[in-house]
Amino acid sequence: MTKKGIKIVTIGGGSSYTPELMEGFIKRYDELPIREIWLVDIEKGKDKLETVGAMAQRMWDASPYEVKVNLTLDRKEALKDADFVTTQFRVGLLDARIKDERIPASYGLLGQETNGAGGIFKALRTVPVILEIVEDMKRLCPEAWLINFTNPAGMVTEAIRRYGNWDRVIGLCNVPVHAIMVEPSLLGKKEDELIHKFAGLNHFHWHKVSDLKGNDITEELIEQLMDENNGLPKNIFDVPFYEEQLENMKMIPCGYHRYYYRQEEMLNHSLEEFKTIGTRAQQVKETERQLFELYKDPMLDYKPEQLQQRGGAYYSEAACETIASIYANKNTQIVVSVKNDGAVPDLPADCVVEVMAYIGAEGARNVAFGELPVAEKGWLQVMKAMELLTIEAAVTGDYGTLLQAFIINPLIPSGETAKQVMNELFIAHKEYLPKFKEIISKLESQGLKIKDSVVREMQL
Amino acid sequence: MTKKGIKIVTIGGGSSYTPELMEGFIKRYDELPIREIWLVDIEKGKDKLETVGAMAQRMWDASPYEVKVNLTLDRKEALKDADFVTTQFRVGLLDARIKDERIPASYGLLGQETNGAGGIFKALRTVPVILEIVEDMKRLCPEAWLINFTNPAGMVTEAIRRYGNWDRVIGLCNVPVHAIMVEPSLLGKKEDELIHKFAGLNHFHWHKVSDLKGNDITEELIEQLMDENNGLPKNIFDVPFYEEQLENMKMIPCGYHRYYYRQEEMLNHSLEEFKTIGTRAQQVKETERQLFELYKDPMLDYKPEQLQQRGGAYYSEAACETIASIYANKNTQIVVSVKNDGAVPDLPADCVVEVMAYIGAEGARNVAFGELPVAEKGWLQVMKAMELLTIEAAVTGDYGTLLQAFIINPLIPSGETAKQVMNELFIAHKEYLPKFKEIISKLESQGLKIKDSVVREMQL
Amino acid sequence: MTKKGIKIVTIGGGSSYTPELMEGFIKRYDELPIREIWLVDIEKGKDKLETVGAMAQRMWDASPYEVKVNLTLDRKEALKDADFVTTQFRVGLLDARIKDERIPASYGLLGQETNGAGGIFKALRTVPVILEIVEDMKRLCPEAWLINFTNPAGMVTEAIRRYGNWDRVIGLCNVPVHAIMVEPSLLGKKEDELIHKFAGLNHFHWHKVSDLKGNDITEELIEQLMDENNGLPKNIFDVPFYEEQLENMKMIPCGYHRYYYRQEEMLNHSLEEFKTIGTRAQQVKETERQLFELYKDPMLDYKPEQLQQRGGAYYSEAACETIASIYANKNTQIVVSVKNDGAVPDLPADCVVEVMAYIGAEGARNVAFGELPVAEKGWLQVMKAMELLTIEAAVTGDYGTLLQAFIINPLIPSGETAKQVMNELFIAHKEYLPKFKEIISKLESQGLKIKDSVVREMQL
Amino acid sequence: MTKKGIKIVTIGGGSSYTPELMEGFIKRYDELPIREIWLVDIEKGKDKLETVGAMAQRMWDASPYEVKVNLTLDRKEALKDADFVTTQFRVGLLDARIKDERIPASYGLLGQETNGAGGIFKALRTVPVILEIVEDMKRLCPEAWLINFTNPAGMVTEAIRRYGNWDRVIGLCNVPVHAIMVEPSLLGKKEDELIHKFAGLNHFHWHKVSDLKGNDITEELIEQLMDENNGLPKNIFDVPFYEEQLENMKMIPCGYHRYYYRQEEMLNHSLEEFKTIGTRAQQVKETERQLFELYKDPMLDYKPEQLQQRGGAYYSEAACETIASIYANKNTQIVVSVKNDGAVPDLPADCVVEVMAYIGAEGARNVAFGELPVAEKGWLQVMKAMELLTIEAAVTGDYGTLLQAFIINPLIPSGETAKQVMNELFIAHKEYLPKFKEIISKLESQGLKIKDSVVREMQL
Repeated sequence: MTKKGIKIVTIGGGSSYTPELMEGFIKRYDELPIREIWLVDIEKGKDKLETVGAMAQRMWDASPYEVKVNLTLDRKEALKDADFVTTQFRVGLLDARIKDERIPASYGLLGQETNGAGGIFKALRTVPVILEIVEDMKRLCPEAWLINFTNPAGMVTEAIRRYGNWDRVIGLCNVPVHAIMVEPSLLGKKEDELIHKFAGLNHFHWHKVSDLKGNDITEELIEQLMDENNGLPKNIFDVPFYEEQLENMKMIPCGYHRYYYRQEEMLNHSLEEFKTIGTRAQQVKETERQLFELYKDPMLDYKPEQLQQRGGAYYSEAACETIASIYANKNTQIVVSVKNDGAVPDLPADCVVEVMAYIGAEGARNVAFGELPVAEKGWLQVMKAMELLTIEAAVTGDYGTLLQAFIINPLIPSGETAKQVMNELFIAHKEYLPKFKEIISKLESQGLKIKDSVVREMQL
Repeated sequence: MTKKGIKIVTIGGGSSYTPELMEGFIKRYDELPIREIWLVDIEKGKDKLETVGAMAQRMWDASPYEVKVNLTLDRKEALKDADFVTTQFRVGLLDARIKDERIPASYGLLGQETNGAGGIFKALRTVPVILEIVEDMKRLCPEAWLINFTNPAGMVTEAIRRYGNWDRVIGLCNVPVHAIMVEPSLLGKKEDELIHKFAGLNHFHWHKVSDLKGNDITEELIEQLMDENNGLPKNIFDVPFYEEQLENMKMIPCGYHRYYYRQEEMLNHSLEEFKTIGTRAQQVKETERQLFELYKDPMLDYKPEQLQQRGGAYYSEAACETIASIYANKNTQIVVSVKNDGAVPDLPADCVVEVMAYIGAEGARNVAFGELPVAEKGWLQVMKAMELLTIEAAVTGDYGTLLQAFIINPLIPSGETAKQVMNELFIAHKEYLPKFKEIISKLESQGLKIKDSVVREMQL
Repeated sequence: MTKKGIKIVTIGGGSSYTPELMEGFIKRYDELPIREIWLVDIEKGKDKLETVGAMAQRMWDASPYEVKVNLTLDRKEALKDADFVTTQFRVGLLDARIKDERIPASYGLLGQETNGAGGIFKALRTVPVILEIVEDMKRLCPEAWLINFTNPAGMVTEAIRRYGNWDRVIGLCNVPVHAIMVEPSLLGKKEDELIHKFAGLNHFHWHKVSDLKGNDITEELIEQLMDENNGLPKNIFDVPFYEEQLENMKMIPCGYHRYYYRQEEMLNHSLEEFKTIGTRAQQVKETERQLFELYKDPMLDYKPEQLQQRGGAYYSEAACETIASIYANKNTQIVVSVKNDGAVPDLPADCVVEVMAYIGAEGARNVAFGELPVAEKGWLQVMKAMELLTIEAAVTGDYGTLLQAFIINPLIPSGETAKQVMNELFIAHKEYLPKFKEIISKLESQGLKIKDSVVREMQL
Repeated sequence: MTKKGIKIVTIGGGSSYTPELMEGFIKRYDELPIREIWLVDIEKGKDKLETVGAMAQRMWDASPYEVKVNLTLDRKEALKDADFVTTQFRVGLLDARIKDERIPASYGLLGQETNGAGGIFKALRTVPVILEIVEDMKRLCPEAWLINFTNPAGMVTEAIRRYGNWDRVIGLCNVPVHAIMVEPSLLGKKEDELIHKFAGLNHFHWHKVSDLKGNDITEELIEQLMDENNGLPKNIFDVPFYEEQLENMKMIPCGYHRYYYRQEEMLNHSLEEFKTIGTRAQQVKETERQLFELYKDPMLDYKPEQLQQRGGAYYSEAACETIASIYANKNTQIVVSVKNDGAVPDLPADCVVEVMAYIGAEGARNVAFGELPVAEKGWLQVMKAMELLTIEAAVTGDYGTLLQAFIINPLIPSGETAKQVMNELFIAHKEYLPKFKEIISKLESQGLKIKDSVVREMQL
């Protein structure tokens, strides 16, 4: 780190999350003496960047600390000599996510923006961009840490390591943060009275909990969770898990496991929303619109309550704490997506997993979890295969590889409908998928178009 | 082996397949000098046993060889000093399979009698019985070989080894036999001009093909297969594989992979049959009825043409050849379900896999296949997890374990419908599931019954 | 833990290390409020127990805390309701170790009391006793933690887990403590400016070091170590490592690796000592004698300087810190022998390894190290095989298994001499090897005796 | 294969083994219709090539078949359109092997020309040459099979696959052939009454044996082997294995395991020979001289008896049978060094192992052996590490890597003597080690020379 203080760069700085990030940095200023912050965005996001950037500067100005928030559309200018780079960009903005969700839904399938059909296309759009960023970092800030919370965070982190050959990367997610914060109260305990261990992939992990006597109290917690159906981030519909299943696994699945363990109900709920209030992305778009309205208020110099309602709460908390822990070698326990190194022995040592880790100056020191039971081991291995196929397709532009990813994905029933969804998503996102240019041209020449209903919706 | 000649015992000897088995033995008498054959069945199958048994004796009498076909309902009497035991029984007969298929179908789900919901319940019914047979064999014929072709053959073989601790077992299936016989003609070649390598699980394997120059010609064969959509056993609906997928995997999947790779179409086809001509089991039942009519003809002393039409053609061919190869240490290449020993390095060395093997006096000498590509590796690992959960549930009677098997099964969308299907199958098969007695009582006390429509159908 | 305060039991309490242990507890009383300490020993060690026990009580009396030090020969009385049990006993006392070293040396072989021929016999003597202790603990203090520093600490911990089925165990060693304390000064840094990662087995591990910028500075440290030949516990002869080798491995081996990497020099040095000043055990025996002279002084109420000179310095430091970290869930980083859980992916997840871990209420949270380079991976796998063979022999009493351990041990050249050493060690330790009773009788009936020279030496 | 008949190229064709090779081809002409044979050698070997080449032609002329034996020093001319290439060359001829043996022996260490210090340097000399040959083959005969019996055959085959990226290679050794031929008679059986399974590395494998009832009779065979101390190739001193060890492993080690299991006796025997009749290589040199005297006899047109006395008997038998099996897709069982593919699950699937395989048109179909017991697993892993380090050093020319290979090698006690041996071997072989040119210059500039005694011996 430079002696003068820390330079932080946020790519996708025009995001509505930025104020939470600022709040996190302000709170930790004593241990994380920031000198300058750079918010980077693209031309299309310029207005938002200016709005949220002005608000970010107001937040610092209202604090006791003198920090300059720089706004730029020039990523390279920002990256020069950065100490930490956080990524929270969306290729194609929320409109792309709306397509990720609505196109599958229009065929009666789940979009699911992280691990489903939507998530696969989000990865296809994101991987080429993040690999460009990594190339810039190699030249401009080779010692910087990349803190990624662009979804699908696990696949993006895997791509950064595997195809970008960049080691200084940590992927983050708010799902485990949520679990760790909510669970103690279910057991009438304080946060530091529970000990957590995680194993799995992003949005696909399990955890176990011990008390301060060193006893595994996961089963006790499962009982409480079943009673209260608590412990769930806001962006996941709350159909309960089957108690018999949880008793068998003796671990706690993450909220996203509902998509796998209660596929029918999650699909129905998602189709219901699709037909009525709009998909999750559409709801988020409205929330975002309202947030930006608030941010425009020149008197607002603190994070507004409403941001908490947004799905990704605690993301920024995790990000700021990760950065501070690296900088100050704090050894804080945080759940992260990082190189396995054996922590999850059922997966290869060199792939990316999501585990509990102690975060310090050299990055993540993963807590070895040990072998998983047979069911969870099987799930994990098939999901990692799906991830690897997806990012391989993103890098090679191979149609067959992507088809394999679609077919193996447990949330997508294979067959003609799935293939049509895949083809229509190609058309929908064509400007962000240069690797698939030829394939898309061929599909278009066959007359393939996005369904009218989806197009109409987008214009609303 | 005894010097006097070989004693062969067939459990489920009243099956319509028995004549094929006899034909196979007669054909191989020179290398496999059989002394006596015992056909064993249960009280309920007595009539069929007598019909097919008489016919079997006629076949031998029409041959140049003097072999006595003994019929018995006393398994222990038959097993005493046996050299080879073949198992082709169905717990609950075809009616049970009809329930396996119709109950899921009545909810819009796939029954699939081997790897789907139906197959899971078939395993639950079969595993306790096969483990009893193994216990008898330990006492009565500890040096005998068990040649299993009761489905789901992979899971049953796994249970025999893992829970029965019986090593001298080989599981058989006609699917690979079919592929090996059909493929040469697609390439304008003779059968001995192709070299096959298999890896996977029963009804879930892939293979590669080389020519006599040692060149891998799998891709050429894929092209032919796509053109002709050939190479498919009769019991599988012939929706074509996606060419792009096969080009990516560079291996040939088995026919049953259609259920996984074209889930939508296979489901629709199965529901269509359910609503019109009846499920596959119902069709088989009719075929069987006709076969037994033929078998009653006291003049019939050879395998009738019609048996070929039945799904399992070549099963018995594989069985007879396996037995002859063990007896005469022939080193014939046969695809079998046996202990892995590393042949499929992506699965544990001590689990059961389906691979090409050279069969000789010490059983199967598996051909090591090497690592699978990422997609197939993921599929294989999740399917083995499903198998292990199913047979563990069969042995322990644990509801949660079985629920995990249902939920992880790629052919079953998880959720309430799946759980109701599972519960209704419990009721339907209660007499064959003593391990689950308490659970079934509880379900019944909650008023759970089999759907009227399914009951009605069964009475037809 | 009981509310009244902590009960600590030390088996082998008559050891000369006990005052260091007391000092460690006194230093940490604020976070580790001990109520009572029980020092347990056997009849033969009664005098020492009384001497060191009185001294231990004096140390507490000189402190601000009121703690009772109980002395007993009745292990069961002591274990009742214990919170922590530490084991530092030597089956056969130092005299047994002298035989472990002198008998091999009399044949020109290395004794090496931890991983060599001597260490193998130390394990044979110790494993049955530790398994008895574990059985007592299951009944008398089933929630207690067992902190083992009886050597060979890795094998003993493996036996406790594998054959004793006891999970709450942590094996400790002073070698990594030494490295962590010495290395910063070599680089002109403070202790908290280096970050360590360890992987391997007890007395057979490697480590890597990073600085607070997150850069791996192991190579820089290797240079310093080669220059100064520092970082070595006192009980290991200081022949330098080959710089070319260390540069290749890019890790720092532990001091004991000298036995493997400089076998010739270590053997010559050990034979030289054998012939002149006596083996290490003989030197230690003299040191111990002097220490006990000091301990008898009724005015001595603090740990004397001279104890530092003894080989095991810091052992007790590690033990006290481990206990305090468990009790207060401190998450201190300590290098421990514990269940792998994947931290060293080159070894099975369920075996014991020595790794860096964060120690807290649920025990060790191992830092995943990732795969080792090819040479170190090979070494590790062969050494773990040696360990597993040794403890299997200790449990089964099988001569062939032990012979395999001897032959595979890299410090023992196989052949008649090695076999004679093995046989003579059987005779020498016969009273502590009840499992091998018949084998030893047979050897004695063949006229086998301990060499006169060794007997004579023992009587000195 | 070309229709006109087969072209076979033998590199190192001037070897004394060539007549055995010719005999093998003549015997198999019916199934292996050879058109032309090319014997390739280097300038230094020209005389021998002419002698043995003339004799080879006489052998064919005395046969019913018309085959031309071509002699050339131009490898490329020979390789053009070859169908099979066999390699039996020695870089540096027998004189280099004499140095490999005598230099270590002069320091009291084992030379051991395959897995010891000598074998390591043999690999260093051979790997660069075989990689050149492979490059030639890629251009001149890309469909040819490379049948390697240049030692150390396992390491050479590993190098061909790993660094040459050439798949069509099979490594051969006569050691397993010997075992398979000798063992039946020990049990009063015929050759086709035993079934063999092998696992391990070249000169480092174990095997198990079954009878025609499928029973494992390895333990019975061990008893016979211990009684008769039979089953040993001529080039290995016959100190017996320890019966207790063999009973524990329940497998039969290969003859070369004597070096590992009876290190002391093998070393003493080798030093004894060194001081009296000369090392093995010196004896072989004399045998070779005598053989070439015979070969000069223009009347000799058959393989002379005396060749049988030479160590490598059956090598050529294995080579000819391998070639015929590939050509005619015979599925003969032969023990070969090939890509593992899981056959030995304790080693990575992509490394080279030595296993039983069925040899056919696509090469080796390895028989999966299953997991090894703990001791043999450990041995195997450490030996594969030694092999990988050696060939890596051969390719990179890195001194530290080679030092690691020396230190990990179980036949070399680490330390100054070993390092001096290594350095002196560098000097001795400098003309064949271009990758180590700088290192050797440095050693020479420090005044390092080959010991006079070794030099003197060489001049004899």
